Amino acid sequence: MLEELKQRVMEANKRLKSDHLVISTWGNVSEYDEKTGLVAIKASGVSYDSMKPEHMVIVDLDGNVVEGDYRPSTDCATHICLYREFKGVKAIVHTHSTYATIWAQAGKDIPILGTTHADYFMGDVPCTREMTKEEIDSAYEENTGHVIVERFKDINPLEIRGVLVKGHAPFVWGDNADSAVTNAMVLEQVAKMAWHNAVLAGGDPAKLNPNLLNKHYNRKFGKDAYYGQK
Amino acid sequence: MLEELKQRVMEANKRLKSDHLVISTWGNVSEYDEKTGLVAIKASGVSYDSMKPEHMVIVDLDGNVVEGDYRPSTDCATHICLYREFKGVKAIVHTHSTYATIWAQAGKDIPILGTTHADYFMGDVPCTREMTKEEIDSAYEENTGHVIVERFKDINPLEIRGVLVKGHAPFVWGDNADSAVTNAMVLEQVAKMAWHNAVLAGGDPAKLNPNLLNKHYNRKFGKDAYYGQK
Amino acid sequence: MLEELKQRVMEANKRLKSDHLVISTWGNVSEYDEKTGLVAIKASGVSYDSMKPEHMVIVDLDGNVVEGDYRPSTDCATHICLYREFKGVKAIVHTHSTYATIWAQAGKDIPILGTTHADYFMGDVPCTREMTKEEIDSAYEENTGHVIVERFKDINPLEIRGVLVKGHAPFVWGDNADSAVTNAMVLEQVAKMAWHNAVLAGGDPAKLNPNLLNKHYNRKFGKDAYYGQK
Amino acid sequence: MLEELKQRVMEANKRLKSDHLVISTWGNVSEYDEKTGLVAIKASGVSYDSMKPEHMVIVDLDGNVVEGDYRPSTDCATHICLYREFKGVKAIVHTHSTYATIWAQAGKDIPILGTTHADYFMGDVPCTREMTKEEIDSAYEENTGHVIVERFKDINPLEIRGVLVKGHAPFVWGDNADSAVTNAMVLEQVAKMAWHNAVLAGGDPAKLNPNLLNKHYNRKFGKDAYYGQK
Repeated sequence: MLEELKQRVMEANKRLKSDHLVISTWGNVSEYDEKTGLVAIKASGVSYDSMKPEHMVIVDLDGNVVEGDYRPSTDCATHICLYREFKGVKAIVHTHSTYATIWAQAGKDIPILGTTHADYFMGDVPCTREMTKEEIDSAYEENTGHVIVERFKDINPLEIRGVLVKGHAPFVWGDNADSAVTNAMVLEQVAKMAWHNAVLAGGDPAKLNPNLLNKHYNRKFGKDAYYGQK
Repeated sequence: MLEELKQRVMEANKRLKSDHLVISTWGNVSEYDEKTGLVAIKASGVSYDSMKPEHMVIVDLDGNVVEGDYRPSTDCATHICLYREFKGVKAIVHTHSTYATIWAQAGKDIPILGTTHADYFMGDVPCTREMTKEEIDSAYEENTGHVIVERFKDINPLEIRGVLVKGHAPFVWGDNADSAVTNAMVLEQVAKMAWHNAVLAGGDPAKLNPNLLNKHYNRKFGKDAYYGQK
Repeated sequence: MLEELKQRVMEANKRLKSDHLVISTWGNVSEYDEKTGLVAIKASGVSYDSMKPEHMVIVDLDGNVVEGDYRPSTDCATHICLYREFKGVKAIVHTHSTYATIWAQAGKDIPILGTTHADYFMGDVPCTREMTKEEIDSAYEENTGHVIVERFKDINPLEIRGVLVKGHAPFVWGDNADSAVTNAMVLEQVAKMAWHNAVLAGGDPAKLNPNLLNKHYNRKFGKDAYYGQK
Repeated sequence: MLEELKQRVMEANKRLKSDHLVISTWGNVSEYDEKTGLVAIKASGVSYDSMKPEHMVIVDLDGNVVEGDYRPSTDCATHICLYREFKGVKAIVHTHSTYATIWAQAGKDIPILGTTHADYFMGDVPCTREMTKEEIDSAYEENTGHVIVERFKDINPLEIRGVLVKGHAPFVWGDNADSAVTNAMVLEQVAKMAWHNAVLAGGDPAKLNPNLLNKHYNRKFGKDAYYGQK
């Protein structure tokens, strides 16, 4: 069942390792299948080197395991919450990639400082608020999803395809498992450069000219996009 | 004698190199065998590339070499001291991994700033006090063990599985040689991120929410742990 | 047509990847052929791994595609502008290499701090001014070329073979595609060291002694150069 | 002539590349042969990948080329000056390794902050003074040697086996070509950690306890050394 999806999600999970976005087993990728309304997600605590398609667990949007002999990732409830709330998001990646996690630990949005950032994200990448003791003590992973959704009240998740969970690490999304991993890789590079700029500036670095932000984002994703081969 | 133990300890020593935790010969792993009360430890100054099981020296908890043609690691007396004092510690790793060593050189505890840290260590990773001239001039390596034990007077070594020796470098432990190396690798990543957060904050970065610390540590190591496959 | 040129430009583009100057498809190399007055440049959005000579597009100095089935790099108009204005520049490289991009995001010249810099660039590597809304909204890529040319009003582009475009990233040039990539690699290393020196100095680091600048630049590129084999 | 020496020096030069101490052709190793009073040194500007023993040039201590079809490294006169002045130094390495060069650009000694440093260098690694216009304009490379020697007036070059040339980069030495490269690799790691400690401290980090310095240096190099296998 959903063999192609499981294969694709497995390959995206392995790419987390080859792109140096994870160490140990600290990351997971899922993808949502619109036809069946089901999600394929990595099993919890599985090594990337020995990963096979059967380590991809199929769950529905209520969090029930539909197929698979393994427990899904502990972050599964966060993924499902985002699929339910963010229409159009087809794949989700969670990593503890170094620089994105540093910004999450700092509890700060990643400021948009250059066109590299604008080529992929239409503005600052936001960080969530502190979670309450109640949110942490029960249904923690689902509540992680809720604080992300709350943070996007005035942000379009199809223009800003990622978030930092305060004290934890990033979640990133995209149109399919592979492009979501690309977005996670770009977020890490953008977070790395922003850290260096913040330190060089001795505080808050100057933001990118908004005209450049619009130009770069739209030449890749706008209605008159002209980047790449069409 | 203890061939399986020697093989396992050798593989863990080689993993120090492949996980980029050591350069040159600056690191060593040992493991304690409960049945015999003996320890296998790397020989001093041996290259990781040409390492064989016979380079693992067998010593008892009084520091006598029981088997092996080589001198044990110069840090052997520190390892033995910790096995004697920390019940339940089965394997010990010493490295000069870059960021953990930077915190040791600074003489500062590694503050807990995120869930990556909380997934493995139940709080700040402590740094020992300055050693006296007397402690350095005689039985230096054993006294290194004593100042570590002193630092853990009010800390449970089975919840905080590592320490920084001031001016020197980290010692890390675990349930077996391989998991101790994993803990050393995590310590290095945690130390790296904490350094970046300290610099970004221009001083002391904000600590992780204690509720998140408890949640993350216990979902992996608590009595109701649900991370991974059971 | 121009098969050797396309082969050479393709190899230089691939070197961007193997020298770690680009991630994803974020970089491009072109070379100008003096005999025909034509330029070979990478196609837009093409992966370095699957790149073939036919992905090199031939354009003239008015920006017309003379040969090739692909769209040229979106940055093509910037390259052409520089070939028209900077006599003697034969090849151009654009990357988003990490540290050079950090300086571009900071909007600061890379200060000359050591002989490594002086061995390749005869002084600070300049950063362009902010572009206006008008310059960005129409003919953006060509105007990027114009602000570079404006910045070199009092600088010899054959002595300072690179520039930072504010908020964006570097452009670097040279005598042929391969040596332009070498210059881009040196710029990245020089930018990396300068960032570390600026942070160590807590602001503006001291510049290199001008006598050392002259000595090092001229022993490689001056009329009495004696570096290498002649 | 001196085929073994040339082979050994060539291998040490290649190790500069595999140990990531050089990029491009920016580094060179020489070794002095006591019996003949001759030195083997890398030819100028030769690539490490295509290097062969015949790229090692034989020179005498007056700087005359005794054998070889290539020009020796431009830094040859510096090497020779040090062999003449520092009795007991048998091999010399020059690199532009990243962090050592950053300290050289800052014009600062690398402070001794930990036992990693003390295991190899018996104190701070000194930086030379600014050179005068006269010293730079004539016999620059030989004068580079002279300012190094001047800096060691009160330092034993057999206890501190390296130096930073202000605005330029490190020179490091040892008992043979291979161990000199090891010292260069250690200097780079020590320089890297010291930079991070200086930034973490927001200025001057606290020096290593002198008792630990003596202990660590002497357990490796003192008359009662007990590190490694004897």
